[in-house]
Amino acid sequence: MRLAMGVEYDGSAYHGWQLQKSGVRSVQQEIEQALSTVAAHPVRVFCAGRTDTGVHGEGQVIHFDTPAIRSMRGWVLGTNVNLPDDVNINWVQEVSDEFHARFSATSRSYRYVILNRPTRSAIWRDRAVWIHHALDETLMQRAADHLVGTHDFSSYRAIGCQAKSPVRTISRLTVSRNEDRVIIEVSANAFLHHMVRNIAGVLITIGRGEEPVDWSMEVLNHRDRTLGGVTAPPQGLYLVHVGYPDTFELPAGSKA
Amino acid sequence: MRLAMGVEYDGSAYHGWQLQKSGVRSVQQEIEQALSTVAAHPVRVFCAGRTDTGVHGEGQVIHFDTPAIRSMRGWVLGTNVNLPDDVNINWVQEVSDEFHARFSATSRSYRYVILNRPTRSAIWRDRAVWIHHALDETLMQRAADHLVGTHDFSSYRAIGCQAKSPVRTISRLTVSRNEDRVIIEVSANAFLHHMVRNIAGVLITIGRGEEPVDWSMEVLNHRDRTLGGVTAPPQGLYLVHVGYPDTFELPAGSKA
Repeated sequence: MRLAMGVEYDGSAYHGWQLQKSGVRSVQQEIEQALSTVAAHPVRVFCAGRTDTGVHGEGQVIHFDTPAIRSMRGWVLGTNVNLPDDVNINWVQEVSDEFHARFSATSRSYRYVILNRPTRSAIWRDRAVWIHHALDETLMQRAADHLVGTHDFSSYRAIGCQAKSPVRTISRLTVSRNEDRVIIEVSANAFLHHMVRNIAGVLITIGRGEEPVDWSMEVLNHRDRTLGGVTAPPQGLYLVHVGYPDTFELPAGSKA
Repeated sequence: MRLAMGVEYDGSAYHGWQLQKSGVRSVQQEIEQALSTVAAHPVRVFCAGRTDTGVHGEGQVIHFDTPAIRSMRGWVLGTNVNLPDDVNINWVQEVSDEFHARFSATSRSYRYVILNRPTRSAIWRDRAVWIHHALDETLMQRAADHLVGTHDFSSYRAIGCQAKSPVRTISRLTVSRNEDRVIIEVSANAFLHHMVRNIAGVLITIGRGEEPVDWSMEVLNHRDRTLGGVTAPPQGLYLVHVGYPDTFELPAGSKA
């Protein structure tokens, strides 16, 4: 039987999603340990999107195979009991064997939260990046508009990114302000490594007035990471949603 | 010279605001240590409202006296450099010697955040209380309306509360929903010990449908804490604002 699960985590204390060598905490390791206890056999999970150190998950999706028979409620509650309090399962759903958390996904959405005020924040310290220079979110939105659509995002991918193609399709990229928080929301079919944080880095530079609005497009057209902007820090980044075709019948929050 | 400061803290790691015996962390201790370093003499601070273990401060106000001459920017940045990352100063303002953070305050505002959904949340674990039973925020608002005004809040104060009078005036008490978060916002001239958490406890019980709307008033009329509801947990509570008369010329966010 194949099961899909919705996973949430505060990435602050983790060396990212992916299983690491011993002694380094990863979200995957915590999930696999908890599921192995509930299933009473070793469980290996596959996720929709591997997140880096310090990045948060609100709508991460995983799948795994198990012969264990548990109620859906038993899977959720049993797994949560065996997880530390900075990781939890939000839902579980039986899926067909064709489902793959990563390869079946048709869209991913991320949120990047910037705290834009003169002083740092105790309450938001691990939940947002603090920028004390005033940001103009209107300029940032105009710069963001240049990136919507299908493009070669070579300038916005990490140097070590191993994806075969640098072409991705951004379906939505918005910048909004809620009091002292500037929020970037972006959806695409898939993302390259560091792509959201590199986009955030360029938009922040433009929002500060250090580069003109069209710089986001100039960077894009260079197709060269070394001519791109800085990578924005991880603590402002949240994987908020992964979309799948309706045929898999995942919970409403997880439809494409 | 007397200085007022706006203080923010994540209360998760602290045994409340007030200075404790050695070995127990308090926010006051952290602030006094940092200020003593910046001022180069021992500093004793007075706060507007002492918060309990696990309660957060967004708009706490303090005052202290010092002969040290520093720029306003120097006080803020210098103090923040000497504070752990879960406490910070947001502003500083020179005030007259008549100003007292606690006794000059004419209003206090708190927010109580409830995460209302079937599963616990890794991201909100220390920032909200999790209630998995469905809450009806409309019933909660009607129950809250009974408490607005000047009343004897004996039923809503902690057994050990040392205030001379149990009479307080609530100027505003609202219950709203933002997706899966139910937010209680309350302003009063002052609060008794545990008063907000005891109000939250009664409203949550009514929101779950376990008691009728008028129960909030019945509890009030008993004037007996032993006939009140449970005290809601601390991690959902934020001291968001303290108001002072305009004559003290505090920053805009701190006016009454």
